[in-house]
Amino acid sequence: MSTSGGTSLPIYLDNAASTPILDEVIREMLPYFKEYYGNPSSLHRFGRVTMRAIECARARVSSLIGCKLHEIIFTSGGTEANNLAIKGIAELVRKLNPKKNCIITSAIDHESVLEAFRDLEKKGFDVSYLPVTREAQIETAALKRAIIGDRTALVSIMFSNNEVGTIQPIRELATITHQKGGLFHTDAVQAVGKIPIDVKHLGVDLLSASSHKINGPKGVGALYKREGLKLAAIIHGGGQESTLRSGTENVHGIVGFGKACEIAAQRLVTSETEIRALRDYLIDRVLYEIPNSRLNCSTQKRIANIAHFTFFGVNGEDLIIKLDELGIAASTGSACSLRHRRPSHVLKAMGFSYAELTGSLRLSIGILNTKQEIDQAVSILSQAVEELRKISPFELGTDEQN
Amino acid sequence: MSTSGGTSLPIYLDNAASTPILDEVIREMLPYFKEYYGNPSSLHRFGRVTMRAIECARARVSSLIGCKLHEIIFTSGGTEANNLAIKGIAELVRKLNPKKNCIITSAIDHESVLEAFRDLEKKGFDVSYLPVTREAQIETAALKRAIIGDRTALVSIMFSNNEVGTIQPIRELATITHQKGGLFHTDAVQAVGKIPIDVKHLGVDLLSASSHKINGPKGVGALYKREGLKLAAIIHGGGQESTLRSGTENVHGIVGFGKACEIAAQRLVTSETEIRALRDYLIDRVLYEIPNSRLNCSTQKRIANIAHFTFFGVNGEDLIIKLDELGIAASTGSACSLRHRRPSHVLKAMGFSYAELTGSLRLSIGILNTKQEIDQAVSILSQAVEELRKISPFELGTDEQN
Repeated sequence: MSTSGGTSLPIYLDNAASTPILDEVIREMLPYFKEYYGNPSSLHRFGRVTMRAIECARARVSSLIGCKLHEIIFTSGGTEANNLAIKGIAELVRKLNPKKNCIITSAIDHESVLEAFRDLEKKGFDVSYLPVTREAQIETAALKRAIIGDRTALVSIMFSNNEVGTIQPIRELATITHQKGGLFHTDAVQAVGKIPIDVKHLGVDLLSASSHKINGPKGVGALYKREGLKLAAIIHGGGQESTLRSGTENVHGIVGFGKACEIAAQRLVTSETEIRALRDYLIDRVLYEIPNSRLNCSTQKRIANIAHFTFFGVNGEDLIIKLDELGIAASTGSACSLRHRRPSHVLKAMGFSYAELTGSLRLSIGILNTKQEIDQAVSILSQAVEELRKISPFELGTDEQN
Repeated sequence: MSTSGGTSLPIYLDNAASTPILDEVIREMLPYFKEYYGNPSSLHRFGRVTMRAIECARARVSSLIGCKLHEIIFTSGGTEANNLAIKGIAELVRKLNPKKNCIITSAIDHESVLEAFRDLEKKGFDVSYLPVTREAQIETAALKRAIIGDRTALVSIMFSNNEVGTIQPIRELATITHQKGGLFHTDAVQAVGKIPIDVKHLGVDLLSASSHKINGPKGVGALYKREGLKLAAIIHGGGQESTLRSGTENVHGIVGFGKACEIAAQRLVTSETEIRALRDYLIDRVLYEIPNSRLNCSTQKRIANIAHFTFFGVNGEDLIIKLDELGIAASTGSACSLRHRRPSHVLKAMGFSYAELTGSLRLSIGILNTKQEIDQAVSILSQAVEELRKISPFELGTDEQN
């Protein structure tokens, strides 16, 4: 199946940024536009129908990650879920125990986590950013060194990285955090629906998920909050979502997210295997056919859908534009940080040199991509890299040669 | 045109709670599900297309309320817009000038404003709630009495009330606030798209709007923020919406909201006239045909789509349920406060007695309602009130008679 429905349309290899909505998901959402448009808080049948739809979606989301229905809080997306988890816990915990003023994240977490931390830093919190290895791995020892017993309110570490795909040892990190009396949140936006996740097995207190990363609609996400855990809302009002997230519910969005979770759960193992095979095929061909190319983050502990390369002697942003002209949608890194035209904080934390950083490219595969598309993409990529190198002011060669 | 598409389906008279999405709006949204699904932050064409769509929607929203494009911040709805405006201003202003510790709203403002104020009250702000008249009118004298020169950071007064429809003298209230050195926000969720609004003429600094109240999708809203005014974000991350509202944009939602605003702008005068005529026809028939009924808030200064009644000797909640059985979707008041089964804070602030409060019913008309539906609704309502009065434990008669 093609994402584009035709060979003339571009090949979409930016599924870590966003994904097309599946037909089954769209079909499930449509009735909530024209027929079932009631406010879920209304007592009449229009309201009851939409409230039931939300609860059905809640069951599907909770089933995907192995939690209870009332442990799911719907939000407007992963960013809000991260903000709610981090600010909602940190400020509340410190209020109850002013000594608990330390919060910890990693140097490679998503902007929405890092910026929430920076906001708390301005409010007097003591913030630590854990370093990572060249493979973007967070070592449990690093957390053990950073964590301050009885002073750490919250540790927030992403499940899998959005740029290079590394998966962190969440269960171990959560255990260490709990041993020191802290609470643990994970931004699992790039992992939920892609690999099996069981929040009870992981032992996390909070976990963020997003709909549009798994072929659901944009504008909706969820926060898992362990039963009994107290959290302060950041958006107040009518008291929706057990008072933790007020505002008329985005009914069609929630319904679509629920359906996307159901489909992801059904296809989890198959999709992961297929996507991994496509990804590895892509990697093999790229490394074999394009000289002076390197796969970054080759660890086995990484998510199946991301391949991150450096093409030495090429500027990544020029490459994206060239690929776009030639019919491939790709990215240098996270879509969010592209907005600022800043070099990737993830690659910098991994200790990448200027040359390594500059020539970076992320290709992220989705459930709708085909082998034909990958074949076509490799040819186009090979051509693009060659053309850019001809006119590049950068010296060719790997970093080691420079 | 019928909202239901058939006579057997209920008549929807709860348009102040939420509205059906118009066909034209759905048509405009659909391509953003399967074809144009890029992350607006992405550099490739999938991203550029969605970014352009957002900017087109921004133009339509800004055009409806007479502001510049960059004065619109898209949010996940009216509740978030209110929270962003109130918390974003109050905390920032106080930080710059600790003396500015007073904030003012009204006793009848929406839960999302009141709860944001209560949150700030916990954070040490000095909060005043302006009283209202029996007609739910806020008097400029009340603001003049409450406002403390050089100590008031923010005044937030709703444009038109969601339960009884009263329109407040926003321009005058904003002027008074500015004369005392404060900033002015209005929650215009029930007014934008229903009556002509020009933010520059009103002179407000901030104004909240919502999509699903004007036949657009749920899960999207906007905050107008006057050019040059500084505001602190409440959701941090990738820096979308000029860093004031991070998170991947709800593209289809924003597109739908934009289209709903465009349609509302085109039909503004016609719709208002038609809806007012239907509403007044409904009121005339109800008061004439149902004994011991009263129209609440009969002021001319009220929004065209709301009719709020008291049926003495009837319990409003029983009436809603009865009407629902008989095929009418109606409400006792705001959908949000129904969730808590609390008596309406609006009616209490208006000085309503227990009997007046108890028998209250809000019927809110939308652009898809027809005269036939109103005729049918009056017959059903008449029957419902009569049946309930037969079995009611309440004494019949107006409050004055009790």
